[in-house]
Amino acid sequence: MPGPITQLAIVGSGMIGASWAALASAHGLAVSAYDPAAKAEPKFRAYVTRAKGQLAELGLTGQGEIRFSTDLASALAGAQFVQENGPENEAVKRGLLREIQRASPPDAIIASSTSALVRSAIVADCPEPRRVIVAHPFNPPHLVPLVELVGEDREVVETAAAYYRAQGRRPVIMNKEMPGHIANRLASALYQEAVYLVEQGVASVADIDAALCNGPGLRWALMGPHMTYHLGGGAGGIAGYLAHLGPSQLKRWESLGKPSLDEGVRQAIIDGVAEEAAGRSIPELEARRDDGLMALLKARKLVSE
Amino acid sequence: MPGPITQLAIVGSGMIGASWAALASAHGLAVSAYDPAAKAEPKFRAYVTRAKGQLAELGLTGQGEIRFSTDLASALAGAQFVQENGPENEAVKRGLLREIQRASPPDAIIASSTSALVRSAIVADCPEPRRVIVAHPFNPPHLVPLVELVGEDREVVETAAAYYRAQGRRPVIMNKEMPGHIANRLASALYQEAVYLVEQGVASVADIDAALCNGPGLRWALMGPHMTYHLGGGAGGIAGYLAHLGPSQLKRWESLGKPSLDEGVRQAIIDGVAEEAAGRSIPELEARRDDGLMALLKARKLVSE
Repeated sequence: MPGPITQLAIVGSGMIGASWAALASAHGLAVSAYDPAAKAEPKFRAYVTRAKGQLAELGLTGQGEIRFSTDLASALAGAQFVQENGPENEAVKRGLLREIQRASPPDAIIASSTSALVRSAIVADCPEPRRVIVAHPFNPPHLVPLVELVGEDREVVETAAAYYRAQGRRPVIMNKEMPGHIANRLASALYQEAVYLVEQGVASVADIDAALCNGPGLRWALMGPHMTYHLGGGAGGIAGYLAHLGPSQLKRWESLGKPSLDEGVRQAIIDGVAEEAAGRSIPELEARRDDGLMALLKARKLVSE
Repeated sequence: MPGPITQLAIVGSGMIGASWAALASAHGLAVSAYDPAAKAEPKFRAYVTRAKGQLAELGLTGQGEIRFSTDLASALAGAQFVQENGPENEAVKRGLLREIQRASPPDAIIASSTSALVRSAIVADCPEPRRVIVAHPFNPPHLVPLVELVGEDREVVETAAAYYRAQGRRPVIMNKEMPGHIANRLASALYQEAVYLVEQGVASVADIDAALCNGPGLRWALMGPHMTYHLGGGAGGIAGYLAHLGPSQLKRWESLGKPSLDEGVRQAIIDGVAEEAAGRSIPELEARRDDGLMALLKARKLVSE
């Protein structure tokens, strides 16, 4: 059995890669980042510095070394775990994962951050696919705990799950692959209805957003939909809920919208988001989101302890 | 123009009514609660006491008097605002709202907490429907800020919105009525996909719940879906997102599931929730949820200040 994982390689040093690097370094791991473009390094370093500042505020003050290289083989030398964050293109990713596995130590676990592709398609050309998994994070990975795991070898997946848990993540192991995995499918289902409500002029974009984050979104930061209905079912819990309100759920599902994303709807969304942003830039909104996430994470920790 | 609202009547003293009563009392309003059953009073009082303890922790220490009556006319005497929380049955609610308006002061605003019924159906028999609105809260209303408002008279709706805002709520004014209003439609759309993932055996109920509350749910406690995609679109924001990823959203929408709620699926959900609850009773889980909500509300306040 191999020793603890202390050496991480990051392939693709954009926002997701930089976030993974910061998280691992703050947990004391040595990180070796690869990007084909030398000009990617300053942006990568800047993101890592900011993210490590946030993690330090959460009490994570590890100082694992972070190297940057434009040479894949040197970045992968000695890696026990590789997190791939390349372009979301099936052919590109399939080739990249093969290349990564060829250049990595034979027992390294290779994890793809892919959100849109399924594992079977992207591992097809790997020499040893059982060591290649999907490990899909949520942006930004150093703050949002979820990591969705898909693999074929239970031991590899369990090793990866333990690796992410050791970094404070919440791995969810999928029994089978599914386009969009779990969370993005849930988000997409919700977004379809949100767009329908915009299309139908039921409320402004800002008010539809407000309805989520002041209502169910607030509860969903604490518990998922099944547990939420368990607590909404009175003394009978989820069984009572399904018995009494199951038929109205089915009826509601029938009534959900099938919006288009035509020019008019897109423009209404774009205008509505501009109104909601009220002049705040994307970096300002991101900083606000990250401050909020940190406060929520601290709050959840206080409650679960 | 009438003076500030200081007298609230609550019709229906169950969990929702008791929560509204506690919130108003903690803001210093006098509350007069009605329930046809005298035996409802002890449970009502117990809920109010617990909720007022939570509100005091959030700094809301008002001590508005709370009376309880089994006589509708005496409960409504002097009320400036009436919050109705009767059974979710269209005929019952229609009759109840008519009866309430007949017995209330002529300029009182009457707000129904209905979640499942639409305004036009339930105000049909009211002598002056323009003063009768839907004001749908999220459970528990004294903690979750959202109130969805539907009315026909802009001034009445704005007065109601100001009333809820003064109690720290976040009113969302709907431009038109819609079964399920906004937030429960979003929740229902998400739940349909969650049930599909259970039906397909993609992951356990507990893991599907965990994927939400450790991923998108955490972000949705801070911002709605449109703003989330605005920040996921790179420098181009929501316009860039819709231009580049709009087609993949449409494709994803096509791939969403249409689960049944047959015996097998229901049992899988019930068993999965039991596993997730891990022996904790509903009151224990509710207390945990409320502790979590209070911590999140405090955390959000720290960030928005």
